[in-house]
Amino acid sequence: MKGIAFALGKTNYELIIYTVNSTDNVGAFLASIALSGSLDGLIILSLPFTVDDAKRLTDHKVVTVVVEYEQEFFSSVDIDNSTGGEMAGKYLLEKGHRRIGFIGEIYPPDYAIRPALARLNGLRKVMAEAGADIPEYYVQSAPIEPESTRQAATKLLSLPDRPTAIFAAADVQAMVLMKVAADMGLKVPQDVAVLGFDGLEYAEFMGLTTINQSLVDSGRIAADLLLNQLTGASPSVQHIKLPLSLIERETV
Amino acid sequence: MKGIAFALGKTNYELIIYTVNSTDNVGAFLASIALSGSLDGLIILSLPFTVDDAKRLTDHKVVTVVVEYEQEFFSSVDIDNSTGGEMAGKYLLEKGHRRIGFIGEIYPPDYAIRPALARLNGLRKVMAEAGADIPEYYVQSAPIEPESTRQAATKLLSLPDRPTAIFAAADVQAMVLMKVAADMGLKVPQDVAVLGFDGLEYAEFMGLTTINQSLVDSGRIAADLLLNQLTGASPSVQHIKLPLSLIERETV
Repeated sequence: MKGIAFALGKTNYELIIYTVNSTDNVGAFLASIALSGSLDGLIILSLPFTVDDAKRLTDHKVVTVVVEYEQEFFSSVDIDNSTGGEMAGKYLLEKGHRRIGFIGEIYPPDYAIRPALARLNGLRKVMAEAGADIPEYYVQSAPIEPESTRQAATKLLSLPDRPTAIFAAADVQAMVLMKVAADMGLKVPQDVAVLGFDGLEYAEFMGLTTINQSLVDSGRIAADLLLNQLTGASPSVQHIKLPLSLIERETV
Repeated sequence: MKGIAFALGKTNYELIIYTVNSTDNVGAFLASIALSGSLDGLIILSLPFTVDDAKRLTDHKVVTVVVEYEQEFFSSVDIDNSTGGEMAGKYLLEKGHRRIGFIGEIYPPDYAIRPALARLNGLRKVMAEAGADIPEYYVQSAPIEPESTRQAATKLLSLPDRPTAIFAAADVQAMVLMKVAADMGLKVPQDVAVLGFDGLEYAEFMGLTTINQSLVDSGRIAADLLLNQLTGASPSVQHIKLPLSLIERETV
């Protein structure tokens, strides 16, 4: 949202925020927005919608851009999560790791996008190609929430054949891993390397090595896509895959 | 902002976001908002303004609420930072600590509010009353930024008479302290206790004990104050001090 706000701050468009709880009826909400007729455009952040929802927005000429996943109806900005997992695997292999654990929200509720699973699959693929398959007990699913993540971290770090590196599919989960490791007297990265994913501002405070998905850029680019469609500068639907980058700090 | 969005989501008011960079001309920006005539009300978050700015908003009948500091013109929601520092001191004393260090942004740029200094003063007062004055070299000023905070943390943790506890005036700075301690092989809280301030969501992931200023509540209450003034339900200027609470986790 910061990226969207910055991009629109340079224009005469006003940024209006609608908050939708994941348990609300997203369809009814989008319908009311479409019908209100007061919007020039709409950016949907990390919220799934149905084909009917999309048609309603199109029928009411609400120019829409979607952030976090690609679909056929609207322009989108997202990342290739599988590629992100492959980057994680390649980097950890390069650093000499072959026993790699994983923590992530593999089984999110139905409504959610499932990026963590794609990240795991990318990691698995690269490790398998290197002849270092990831055993099932090295993979811990945990919702992005402190207590579950801590349990998952404790399980992985307590294994007799503890992984030498752990890839956490979210930076906040990597932070939990670092905390649990410190409590167990394990040094990062000497005893266990930790690699995150997201590139949160807070990750920098923790010195976390992470795969950066440039969230601020995604907002800025979504706003630019929307503006280009509104002004007619570039009216067609476009799907932008943001490049991922590895930020090397101190935990791998 | 999350709190504001939730509160307004239940009404027919729309939430429009204006981003102002601290280096921008805040006065000119507020003037343009006042003149645009399209706003029913305005919530100013952590942004200082002049007497002239305030008069301009009042003259143009923009009902305004200010979050983070009290002034004479508009209703406000803030916390008593000095009380927060006293809470920190009392809690650390209770836990048996008498050698207490401090990290915070004591010398922020001119435009900023200075909450960290008030937190330090509250801490100093309580410690002095207990006969455990804080020596000057136990006080480290660092902007809320990773590298400066890390240097400050390293200095404090490397002292031959290392403090037994450190109060960080911001949770993100407490997180840096935890990281530096782990890197130095120091256990938290056994070797050094760490107390934060803010109550960020990320602090929970780190198991950080902290003084919670209920940022989501402050947004919600600011929105309620504004709505009450707009509807005439409670038209007078009010100054709300939010209660602070200690969240005990694992780092003290």
